[in-house]
Amino acid sequence: MTIVDTEKTEIKTVLEAVRQGHHDKNAAAIGAHFAPGAIIFDLAPPLGHALDVPGLAAWLDTWEGPISLVDRDLNITVSGDLAICHGLQKVSATTKDDSQRAEWWQRITICLSRIDGIWKIIHEHTSVPFHMDGSFQAALDLEP
Amino acid sequence: MTIVDTEKTEIKTVLEAVRQGHHDKNAAAIGAHFAPGAIIFDLAPPLGHALDVPGLAAWLDTWEGPISLVDRDLNITVSGDLAICHGLQKVSATTKDDSQRAEWWQRITICLSRIDGIWKIIHEHTSVPFHMDGSFQAALDLEP
Repeated sequence: MTIVDTEKTEIKTVLEAVRQGHHDKNAAAIGAHFAPGAIIFDLAPPLGHALDVPGLAAWLDTWEGPISLVDRDLNITVSGDLAICHGLQKVSATTKDDSQRAEWWQRITICLSRIDGIWKIIHEHTSVPFHMDGSFQAALDLEP
Repeated sequence: MTIVDTEKTEIKTVLEAVRQGHHDKNAAAIGAHFAPGAIIFDLAPPLGHALDVPGLAAWLDTWEGPISLVDRDLNITVSGDLAICHGLQKVSATTKDDSQRAEWWQRITICLSRIDGIWKIIHEHTSVPFHMDGSFQAALDLEP
């Protein structure tokens, strides 16, 4: 393996831990992979926020059972102590209040920095586009 | 200036050219700063797409006069041949068809790679969040 292969493997381990943390609905386990000062652009308002483990835990708790995240077209670029990951992600989960199955595709950009030898997420941007048909509805119905 | 200061100045020059390209509604000038194979996650569907200069030109042409982009809380991180820029951006423009003034804040993540000594955009993610009040409306009314 080249150095870049090794680095990509390390980064995939972080992404896998974040995926597993959603499956297990363990906000602290997810939050452990973020650097102090990380800025998050999320599906929900506000425009941007810092890591908020209690807020994440409350969101995870709105779902019944595991939250499934499946990546597609994941692209990882590494140079120096920075890594950029972007791709599409299918989210599948069941709402707790009315047991509805929810599924949607979102775009994810996850940026990591190697700090004291450990890859930490310094920025995360998750979104869906919105329909430009005058409805301004979040496009939760798109397929790749 | 340190090397990183110099690199950040080079990257700001690219971002400034993209801003000026929106002001001038010059799609080719904007597109010149993207690397081949760049993946764009845009405000509008689809989920992701490659650079599409004619499509960008058509969108720029839906506005009357200049499109103003003003950055806020712009953060630039550079290491090796990679750079990550993220921040908020106020867009202001006037629609061509009904002369309405449109203004909204969006989140931007712009990732650049130094290719043959020149910083090129390899990934751009632009979005607004959506309201989680059951309306699923794009949150075009947020202020930082």
